Amino acid sequence: MADLQKAMAESARAVSETLDRLLKVGGGREARLMEAMRYSSLGGGKRIRPFMVTAGARLFSVAESCALRVAAAVEMVHCYSLVHDDLPAMDDDDLRRGQPTCHVRFDEATAILAGDALLTRAFEVLADIPTHPDPQVRSQLVLALARAAGADGMVGGQMLDLMSENESLDMPEITRLQRMKTGALIAFACEAGATLGKASEPARHALRAYAHDLGLAFQIADDLLDVEGTAAEVGKKTGKDAALGKATFVSLLGVERGKAQAQILADQASRHLEMFDEKADYLRELARFVVTRRA
Amino acid sequence: MADLQKAMAESARAVSETLDRLLKVGGGREARLMEAMRYSSLGGGKRIRPFMVTAGARLFSVAESCALRVAAAVEMVHCYSLVHDDLPAMDDDDLRRGQPTCHVRFDEATAILAGDALLTRAFEVLADIPTHPDPQVRSQLVLALARAAGADGMVGGQMLDLMSENESLDMPEITRLQRMKTGALIAFACEAGATLGKASEPARHALRAYAHDLGLAFQIADDLLDVEGTAAEVGKKTGKDAALGKATFVSLLGVERGKAQAQILADQASRHLEMFDEKADYLRELARFVVTRRA
Repeated sequence: MADLQKAMAESARAVSETLDRLLKVGGGREARLMEAMRYSSLGGGKRIRPFMVTAGARLFSVAESCALRVAAAVEMVHCYSLVHDDLPAMDDDDLRRGQPTCHVRFDEATAILAGDALLTRAFEVLADIPTHPDPQVRSQLVLALARAAGADGMVGGQMLDLMSENESLDMPEITRLQRMKTGALIAFACEAGATLGKASEPARHALRAYAHDLGLAFQIADDLLDVEGTAAEVGKKTGKDAALGKATFVSLLGVERGKAQAQILADQASRHLEMFDEKADYLRELARFVVTRRA
Repeated sequence: MADLQKAMAESARAVSETLDRLLKVGGGREARLMEAMRYSSLGGGKRIRPFMVTAGARLFSVAESCALRVAAAVEMVHCYSLVHDDLPAMDDDDLRRGQPTCHVRFDEATAILAGDALLTRAFEVLADIPTHPDPQVRSQLVLALARAAGADGMVGGQMLDLMSENESLDMPEITRLQRMKTGALIAFACEAGATLGKASEPARHALRAYAHDLGLAFQIADDLLDVEGTAAEVGKKTGKDAALGKATFVSLLGVERGKAQAQILADQASRHLEMFDEKADYLRELARFVVTRRA
């Protein structure tokens, strides 16, 4: 695990540097917009999704500068979704990563626009030439990210989540919700390196299978943190799912079976990576980390 | 003008059909999201930006099905921006195209998500193969739309607009604001046909110059409608700029000089199109229409 922590810290630093370069504040009265975009994306975070991109890209000897741009784009989309989800009209959260949320620090209008602009910048980054010399690869990345982030993916999942408050979802319904809300972007992150490296279909299939199991394990771990963690540890309000009467994996399975299930999924995720030998060790360790993290 | 009206109506119908196909409601509790996306993009509108795309594409003999997808993507971005701008935290508008705005008809959370998903779908449409067989063209379209719509374009312009309430902007400042807020997307729409048709640099330059002048003429006409129009005619609240103490072209120039300036810009726009002969007649007529429209 020591190695993983070091690799994750190194990747997080490089991704932050890339974000810093891609989000430069210009002159003009509208500078507040870019400040809010930077506040929402450079204020820390574990950078788990970007790490999936860089670790996946390493399997196919992709140039680091390309992988980091895609990693930054994924993080922009993740951060935009947090900014919008935190808005008063949505989850109404004041705290994120231990800091005031964007609309608290700035204002609601700025937060809405900062989210919009982060999402837009993500596509700009993917479509631009330094991301990959082959325009076919760039188009594929844009298409895959748009599908993962849009109405049939993350945004659809968020809508489904809002529609499901105080509904008693069963296991297939919760699984579908989470595959859309968090799984789709994780799957994009895990597969992006294979796209950049023009990997074979079996390799892509293996990474998709890994992402599928990892995504569910990740979500169960998140649900457990909401039940067992404190705001100080987790950096955001906890106990929210229960307060909203939200059905989650953990509300259905209970804490103990939830933990066991997350462990099984993490092990299963790693087993999909056999074809990559020790090159995939970081991804295997990541699967273990995801279900043992405390924040 | 009769010809233009017919051509615009025909283009609007084809764009609406394309939007209808690209925004299909699926099953699932989240169907409300797609309903809000459809409500916000299929409820009429003059479809001026999509017409710029289809009229521009005709100059280069681009396949109609390709042009219509790009036209639909531009309209999705335009409609998403209206949905977010109408939110209570932004312009707080209840009426749009004579109908309740998205957050009034649905709710704020749904409106935020519907805007997000429309923006995302626009990039999905551009990056997908049916938009153009050459991935280089698709990447260029994504990149150009992202630049036009993001922090250095439309969203930055909206931020600048919010920051400028009760500020006394001068002419260069208002011009910069409008080039970002409305001009950038208009410029994308006017040039997209040239991108689809892999047009020569002089042809692209001519269309950019046309769009530049047309965009300013369009904005002055919009300001005039806000001063002179009634809500019943225009389909949205009028007199807003003055109420907010917003500096506009018309507040600086006055109504009469504003009208004259819009006319000069429209004439100037048309003159950039000389190289296209009568093939550009629709775009020339559009420039006249833009400054004489009553809604």
